[in-house]
Amino acid sequence: MSVAAATPLLHRLGGVASAHGLPDLAGRLDELHSWMRRDLAGFEAELGQLPAGQRIVQRAARHLLDLGGKHLRPMCVALASRLGHGFGDDARAMAVAVELVHTATLLHDDVVDQGDSRRGAPAARCLWGNAASVFAGDWLLVQALQRIRASRVPGALDRMLAVIDEMILAESLQLERRGRLAADLDDYFQVVEGKTASLFRWALWAGGRAGRVDDDACAALEGFGLHLGVAFQMIDDLLDLTGDPRVTGKELHADLREGKMTCALALAAGRDAGLAGALGEALAADVPLPAALIEHIRLALERTGALADARAMAGERIARAVDCLQRVPDGPARAALVTVAEATAHRER
Amino acid sequence: MSVAAATPLLHRLGGVASAHGLPDLAGRLDELHSWMRRDLAGFEAELGQLPAGQRIVQRAARHLLDLGGKHLRPMCVALASRLGHGFGDDARAMAVAVELVHTATLLHDDVVDQGDSRRGAPAARCLWGNAASVFAGDWLLVQALQRIRASRVPGALDRMLAVIDEMILAESLQLERRGRLAADLDDYFQVVEGKTASLFRWALWAGGRAGRVDDDACAALEGFGLHLGVAFQMIDDLLDLTGDPRVTGKELHADLREGKMTCALALAAGRDAGLAGALGEALAADVPLPAALIEHIRLALERTGALADARAMAGERIARAVDCLQRVPDGPARAALVTVAEATAHRER
Repeated sequence: MSVAAATPLLHRLGGVASAHGLPDLAGRLDELHSWMRRDLAGFEAELGQLPAGQRIVQRAARHLLDLGGKHLRPMCVALASRLGHGFGDDARAMAVAVELVHTATLLHDDVVDQGDSRRGAPAARCLWGNAASVFAGDWLLVQALQRIRASRVPGALDRMLAVIDEMILAESLQLERRGRLAADLDDYFQVVEGKTASLFRWALWAGGRAGRVDDDACAALEGFGLHLGVAFQMIDDLLDLTGDPRVTGKELHADLREGKMTCALALAAGRDAGLAGALGEALAADVPLPAALIEHIRLALERTGALADARAMAGERIARAVDCLQRVPDGPARAALVTVAEATAHRER
Repeated sequence: MSVAAATPLLHRLGGVASAHGLPDLAGRLDELHSWMRRDLAGFEAELGQLPAGQRIVQRAARHLLDLGGKHLRPMCVALASRLGHGFGDDARAMAVAVELVHTATLLHDDVVDQGDSRRGAPAARCLWGNAASVFAGDWLLVQALQRIRASRVPGALDRMLAVIDEMILAESLQLERRGRLAADLDDYFQVVEGKTASLFRWALWAGGRAGRVDDDACAALEGFGLHLGVAFQMIDDLLDLTGDPRVTGKELHADLREGKMTCALALAAGRDAGLAGALGEALAADVPLPAALIEHIRLALERTGALADARAMAGERIARAVDCLQRVPDGPARAALVTVAEATAHRER
């Protein structure tokens, strides 16, 4: 894979920043792009060295890996390592591991959510079946754990096992809450912190640790990862309600149709009793949401200010993430992490 | 759980041995039973200390663990450890880990095979859904890996990760071969060694290592585990064709209906062209096997000698397993392993 293909995120983030009239952010992302070129190419090369067997689990895993993705988590590892000794062998192993774990969760999610497409292509489960997609996810988890184990970064394996535990329990909580209308945001944030933010937290910590950053800075990086991950998921959820499918590559309202309660929707339902009633009925009936209800939701999200408030909450998380960086060494890597956080706040896919 | 409940296998094996007119074997199993009572009670107590959270993944995992099972793999760990320093903390952690991994594979298998019952109760996937059953399996894997990691038995974690990798690739091969009639036994043994024997191999090795048995004896134990595991699966497959559902707790011909090619069936199809043709058509049509075909299979298994030959092959594996024990220290633990191997050859569930 070419170096250019290895850094699609930065190109895209640059485009997003320009479109939002944030020329300064766009300029900084361009700088970041050339600065990170070599690191991300090294990551891609190592990711390409995954055992290329002929079993369908291996083909299913490779299918999704080859479709690319944003590689945001590996970039977080690389930037965190650059706060210290840089993106060496250990940090590269951590970057590959975090991408493998992330990809494993996508393979399992598509089975759980019965998703038909992913990254603009048919989901692995549609090509090789649900069983192969589940086993492919398991296989990637094992590959990730073996890499972390071989690298011998102190604490990295124990922390990854704890993170996978957190992710599973959060997925479980989300399953239990599916189809239930709740105005309470506690469950929402518990799910988001467990299923998404925990892996960002690990990526930042592991990158810092692999780069021999000191304990205090590693703890600060964990805080950055936690808040960045929560914001990332909140924006993801907002894009499900308001995104442009041609840009996101995902169908609109997929979460909604699966009965997943997200932040903006919970806020809107709490402020519009008519919406809460209609939505509760539709979810209980477990049928596709009628077009009239979707239009009702769209209007209520704007009218009640739920959408704006959810966006503001995500923005506040970005601010808290950036705030954590005060405790890490100053320099270009720290500036780059700030840029990543700001670009996440404005992402459109 | 009571000590008596902790050792149902030995009681059952004793009953099997008596029914087969093997009074000596029954007598030796009775001795083994009282000898192992304390070890297995310790194992049960530690298994009961799994985090008892309220998430559905935890309840689904607990449901299956509470139904018991044969605990054959933990007993192998305990006996191997008794060849050395005995069933201490490390060996107990290995015993719990191997049972958790085994239970995880059952939770995933029931989703893949759409199994409705397990251990005489509804499958976890029927009570909590497929997604919860998949996540529950993942959760148990993480619990197992965390225990192995914490025990710090040298090499145990690396070997378990390699075993899980083998198991996944074997499950994948089995998926790929499903519904295909093949007289070639190579694939069959590759699947059996990967999906079943690899975990027995680990159990024997890890028990020996935890008991500080020397390298040569550990290698011999691995050989014992490999052949025992293959024989165990071969008998399992035979029970699917000829077992008594009231004893096995499983529906007859479940593998057959899922299009899984087993040893006796492959042999019979290779010797009876009419059967091969009819079976090939039925599998290709992906419809329930007609009663007439099942009767044809039953007769052909006897008439062609396929059943007897498959039984003889399993018996030969048991002999090879016992042969490996020549290289382990003599004493009551070795005699007990011989007894377990012989009881496996005669098991009816």
